[in-house]
Amino acid sequence: MNREESVGRMCFMCIITLPTVPASHSLEVQAKAATSPPSPPPSCSLFLSLFLSLSPLSQTPTMASSSSLSLSQALLTRPTSLPSSTRPSLPSFSTLRATSSTRLSLSLPSASRRRAATVTASASVKTVEKVPADVALIEKSINTIRFLAVDAVEKANSGHPGLPMGCAPMGHVLYDEVMRYNPKNPKWFNRDRFVLSAGHGCMLQYALLHLAGFDSVKEEDLKEFRQWGSRTPGHPENFETLGVEVTTGPLGQGIANAVGLALAEKHLAARFNKPDNEIVDHYTYAILGDGCQMEGIANEACSLAGHWGLGKLIAFYDDNHISIDGNTEIAFTESVDSRFEGLGWHVIWVKNGNTGYDDIRAAIKEAKAVKDKPTLIKVTTTIGYGSPNKANSYSVHGSALGAKEVDATRKNLGWPHEPFHVPEDVKKHWSRHIPEGAALEAEWNAKFAEYEKKYKEEAAELKSIINGELPAGWEKALPTYTPESPADATRNLSQQNLNALVKVLPGLLGGSADLASSNMTLLKSFGDFQKDTPAERNLRFGVREHSMGAICNGIALHSPALIPYCATFFVFTDYMRAAIRLSALSQAGVIYVMTHDSIGLGEDGPTHQPIEHLASFRAMPNILMLRPADGNETAGSYKVAVLNRQRPSILALSRQKLPHLPGTSVEGVEKGGYTVSDNSSGNKPDVILIGTGSELEIAAKAADDLRKEGKAVRVVSLVSWELFDEQSEAYKESVLPAAVSARVSIEAGSTFGWEKIVGPKGKAIGIDRFGASAPAGRIYKEFGITKEAVVAAAKELI
Amino acid sequence: MNREESVGRMCFMCIITLPTVPASHSLEVQAKAATSPPSPPPSCSLFLSLFLSLSPLSQTPTMASSSSLSLSQALLTRPTSLPSSTRPSLPSFSTLRATSSTRLSLSLPSASRRRAATVTASASVKTVEKVPADVALIEKSINTIRFLAVDAVEKANSGHPGLPMGCAPMGHVLYDEVMRYNPKNPKWFNRDRFVLSAGHGCMLQYALLHLAGFDSVKEEDLKEFRQWGSRTPGHPENFETLGVEVTTGPLGQGIANAVGLALAEKHLAARFNKPDNEIVDHYTYAILGDGCQMEGIANEACSLAGHWGLGKLIAFYDDNHISIDGNTEIAFTESVDSRFEGLGWHVIWVKNGNTGYDDIRAAIKEAKAVKDKPTLIKVTTTIGYGSPNKANSYSVHGSALGAKEVDATRKNLGWPHEPFHVPEDVKKHWSRHIPEGAALEAEWNAKFAEYEKKYKEEAAELKSIINGELPAGWEKALPTYTPESPADATRNLSQQNLNALVKVLPGLLGGSADLASSNMTLLKSFGDFQKDTPAERNLRFGVREHSMGAICNGIALHSPALIPYCATFFVFTDYMRAAIRLSALSQAGVIYVMTHDSIGLGEDGPTHQPIEHLASFRAMPNILMLRPADGNETAGSYKVAVLNRQRPSILALSRQKLPHLPGTSVEGVEKGGYTVSDNSSGNKPDVILIGTGSELEIAAKAADDLRKEGKAVRVVSLVSWELFDEQSEAYKESVLPAAVSARVSIEAGSTFGWEKIVGPKGKAIGIDRFGASAPAGRIYKEFGITKEAVVAAAKELI
Repeated sequence: MNREESVGRMCFMCIITLPTVPASHSLEVQAKAATSPPSPPPSCSLFLSLFLSLSPLSQTPTMASSSSLSLSQALLTRPTSLPSSTRPSLPSFSTLRATSSTRLSLSLPSASRRRAATVTASASVKTVEKVPADVALIEKSINTIRFLAVDAVEKANSGHPGLPMGCAPMGHVLYDEVMRYNPKNPKWFNRDRFVLSAGHGCMLQYALLHLAGFDSVKEEDLKEFRQWGSRTPGHPENFETLGVEVTTGPLGQGIANAVGLALAEKHLAARFNKPDNEIVDHYTYAILGDGCQMEGIANEACSLAGHWGLGKLIAFYDDNHISIDGNTEIAFTESVDSRFEGLGWHVIWVKNGNTGYDDIRAAIKEAKAVKDKPTLIKVTTTIGYGSPNKANSYSVHGSALGAKEVDATRKNLGWPHEPFHVPEDVKKHWSRHIPEGAALEAEWNAKFAEYEKKYKEEAAELKSIINGELPAGWEKALPTYTPESPADATRNLSQQNLNALVKVLPGLLGGSADLASSNMTLLKSFGDFQKDTPAERNLRFGVREHSMGAICNGIALHSPALIPYCATFFVFTDYMRAAIRLSALSQAGVIYVMTHDSIGLGEDGPTHQPIEHLASFRAMPNILMLRPADGNETAGSYKVAVLNRQRPSILALSRQKLPHLPGTSVEGVEKGGYTVSDNSSGNKPDVILIGTGSELEIAAKAADDLRKEGKAVRVVSLVSWELFDEQSEAYKESVLPAAVSARVSIEAGSTFGWEKIVGPKGKAIGIDRFGASAPAGRIYKEFGITKEAVVAAAKELI
Repeated sequence: MNREESVGRMCFMCIITLPTVPASHSLEVQAKAATSPPSPPPSCSLFLSLFLSLSPLSQTPTMASSSSLSLSQALLTRPTSLPSSTRPSLPSFSTLRATSSTRLSLSLPSASRRRAATVTASASVKTVEKVPADVALIEKSINTIRFLAVDAVEKANSGHPGLPMGCAPMGHVLYDEVMRYNPKNPKWFNRDRFVLSAGHGCMLQYALLHLAGFDSVKEEDLKEFRQWGSRTPGHPENFETLGVEVTTGPLGQGIANAVGLALAEKHLAARFNKPDNEIVDHYTYAILGDGCQMEGIANEACSLAGHWGLGKLIAFYDDNHISIDGNTEIAFTESVDSRFEGLGWHVIWVKNGNTGYDDIRAAIKEAKAVKDKPTLIKVTTTIGYGSPNKANSYSVHGSALGAKEVDATRKNLGWPHEPFHVPEDVKKHWSRHIPEGAALEAEWNAKFAEYEKKYKEEAAELKSIINGELPAGWEKALPTYTPESPADATRNLSQQNLNALVKVLPGLLGGSADLASSNMTLLKSFGDFQKDTPAERNLRFGVREHSMGAICNGIALHSPALIPYCATFFVFTDYMRAAIRLSALSQAGVIYVMTHDSIGLGEDGPTHQPIEHLASFRAMPNILMLRPADGNETAGSYKVAVLNRQRPSILALSRQKLPHLPGTSVEGVEKGGYTVSDNSSGNKPDVILIGTGSELEIAAKAADDLRKEGKAVRVVSLVSWELFDEQSEAYKESVLPAAVSARVSIEAGSTFGWEKIVGPKGKAIGIDRFGASAPAGRIYKEFGITKEAVVAAAKELI
């Protein structure tokens, strides 16, 4: 039984009785005694309120309080700088369950609740006053986080101090009290995942990783914040800093990644957990800000999270009412709460996120108790909390405070220390996470050993997913084709590949943005991943391309051999380009199955016909743009895509039927470009015809015609420019000899970039205008994407 | 006083009395008597319910009813095809005001309300029974719309019949009863705007335009649906079909365009309307489906619409529970109603959109009465209504019904006619829109003549916006610079241009996605466009890039000389690429002010540093990608952008300071590429150095060094490849002579595409990897984007 489960079982009726708290219920003691049989769960809600609020700072049970802050530090009042005529009223939250409820007030008074003058019982106040020292240490720890952020930004003279200063309390509670991780093995499989969706506040995460003992963020790394070659870049980057799960900064992406991480957990738990051994069991936490909330991708992802009932996703909304342009009242006056309730989330409001530590704890407890819905904890904070002149203004969002204001902030928060100083007691306090993390992992390893004994096959499969191993010989499952195989659209051939691969790749799962029957992405041997059927592997994203991509990034980065694929029409990569770019940057090997890849889709017209898309992805770093021409090339594209776990692939696939061409091969695709047919000798053809995808057939037919006229013609498939670029100069020369300048390319897309391939004397046949609505054959003819055009161009060049 | 205003003034207390309806209140009579003084507004809500529901089908007041449909035609029952384990419950709508309320039931019973058995007064039923003929004609008209769609899709054997069949009733009510337009002048300024956000259902709009008498959609056009060169393409395209306001199809774009259209109306009304003459006064209507609702862009745009209080925006949500992948229950179970209420919209539910004509009318009336909020009318419909075997399934969404099912549908709906037949009485009925439309425009013209007499200056300004005229000599306002002007970032120079231009361009307005102070886009002489200050010109989009672009498309397409600009970091064009592509396709001359255009932004790191973006836009048709190097080039870029009203422009601007270079010019920018400096003669330099934007300075410095060593060096600025491509061959040869193969380009972005410029013997210096987090100077050095690299490359080539 895990910690959260015991907390989840509560009695909601009893809200008055205050039982004695046994020492064995302290979190710390629990963590240390993790392998012993668990104590019986308490059965009273008030008891549990206390239970979860127990500070692990001491060896004895304590009651936390936030009473030591002076009123001058509580910068909650917001100036209303807008003229009254343009000032919308603040949204009201009357329907929300705030955590400062009567029940909690009884046991856990905090500064905010005292301000609200709703303390209804005095007994508990007495209890609080017994243990002021621990609260002081918590606040010291929180101020350590704040000043590490302030000092790092100040030294870099660049960065975002406002968020870390406001979110330090929730960050502290998460990393110090709630989350399970092992600092010395940041990749431990069963760790809780944390995503800072408001990535600009990365100093918060770096400070927390530093305090928690992660080797990736030492003191010298903090001092090198935002400098060349450092491990502490300007936004969190999973490929630079161990302990960072995903790459954030572009707003809204992180929360969608978090949905993907939580989906992965729910899926793997459903597949592998046994009644006697819940081997997959972690939470996913995220912090998102007002900026994330405004982005459409966040709404898409959160709608799906609600639909899927991702109960172990807990998102903190840093509600500080400030974005770069000033008070959010100028552009963001919706009721986020109502929206999230509409999206099927459980919503909690922590009114005082600056000092209401107990409220934050209580909210997390409540969130964990809600098993069938994700939870949004709206935490009202003050951006730049503690800065006497800049808090609660946009000026603290994205610039260093400046020496004078840093001094004033030090005075205001009572922080006499040098820059980057971590007080000894804070250091000592956090030091327990190293042994505790090791213990957590050891406990889980023991659990896995048990699991392996009883469930051998499942254990092997799970292990391969965790370790990123592909089963030996998996590629033999790829279908093969001959020129005699019936002509087919590459989107259909893609489905044959997906259905063949899913039988041998335990980590393959995916789906389409409401185009499964057009993209041909359904896995026939599986049902739909839904709230109540999470072990299935067909994902139904709805018409939400952008979040689909970002969710797949989260899935891919959850476990090395989870291989997510996702699909829409190729033209709609425009909707998800920011997520695709993050796949490339964050080395998430997502497979993008993009069908209807040209004017060949016909009647839907120019809004649906990609033109510039191939070029636009060929220009993007660290991504493979593949455009297979037939069955073997489709299989080859999947082979490449599956093998490239740290480089995403885009497969551009046809709507229309294509013949299987003699000479195409999986091996050819692996080289990116290769000779499909050739009747020349001595590497000196009269002309080279180069095609990709559906136009390779046209090149081949043109070659037939030219050969009949006695020409020596080579046909080259350039299925992936990136892979071809990586080949040796000798290989490239063997395919495209420098001496042969008579080159004609044909591709139903922009000619932009083709000069590199055909050279100044060659001719690129393509489309440099928008498409048109008509049957495909007619458009090809009208646009001159024809065999005749290739033959004519070749003759001009020979 | 306009029609809506009189309707708006109502007494909400009186809901029982049923007064006699005077003939003079029929809509038709009102329209004909438009220039006479208006009748005093009625003061009783029930009276008004009736007033608005009066059918304009007859010359006498009528009570409409939907009673003539047989029960077999009411296909409202939805099969639940999902296994119960994965079937989420339908969202409940208990908090909604449905239009089948008691008050309305009293006066306007409809089929749906009879099913609900809530008819509480019989008097009105009697009234209804008096006029069945009119209802029959309405239904005939609606079935005409349905079968025009069915027949056109059938003939094309391609298209989407489901939506037109389900939405025909709301389409009919809008185009026949509610909207004000002039079929013979589809561009009449004060027309109501209609956007079919669910663009795949375009046959609905084509059928409506055809019936209403628009010359753009004749019978032969319907028969050429989706064929080469026709005016009825596969999705609505404003540049192909007069009467279509914007280009839709990519989901979610249309509703965001509609927000832009409604914003434009609110803005112009605030600027130009006078208490005695409301010269700008129209509604914006939209139909969006489940697909649009799922898209993040729609949520962004609707959040802004709520924030701005766009009371004259009325959106119909075609709630048919079917998307391409099947029942929306598999991916879309949120409460749209709660979400929209959270977004600040007024929400109405029409439970029976198939036959509840009165409910649709009543909902529109209610929507118009709500002045300070946009309204979402959720209309529950049956996709493919009338098709006995395919209605209410995804199979009717995007394919022809097939001959057999077309026959069955004809039988089911009692439609004996040949394909494309419009019954004579339906034709006659709709024929009044031509004279009525002419009268509406004439009335408005008279109103404008009055306006012009009293408000000469305003009238001239409004006229210029309506007619797309730029004030003579506007370009003289552009600032000029000399090499002695202080170095500055082009983003700052951009702000100087914007602030200079706004003084001479009455149609210029715009803003940033929460980066105004970074993008430098604030218009200093104006305040913020807000709910209560809509005459101002600074738009605050919040962090909503995608809808920002689409809203600007709507503004640009509202009136020819409205010139919207919008801004974010250049890398975040990824978030809005689908909207930018639609600017290009739909010929909306939006100006995209994209700052922080390279690694030059420094510490924010690779998530924020564009690499492939210049190439990706150079590959896109009909868009100008401009990257100015200094003050004069920034002014030149604005000159080009303002002049190109049918081609959007993207300005890539630096975060960092740049010097004003000798030799740059506005005229040079207009040619796209030009020689900035040259010490060669005879058009035969030793080497040509080519740069753009911030790297032109590096090229110039390298040239200085090379010239000191005695080389003949030309420096070329290639600020816009598209404009350069459009120059004569002679001009191009004068800048980049074919004989000079020693060419070095430098640009802090992908080298993809540069082979075309530098040729196979040249060298392109750029960045073909992701960026890094560090101070800008360090990154430039580490990535080799330096003067030294240019000099070295040049020496290798000379």
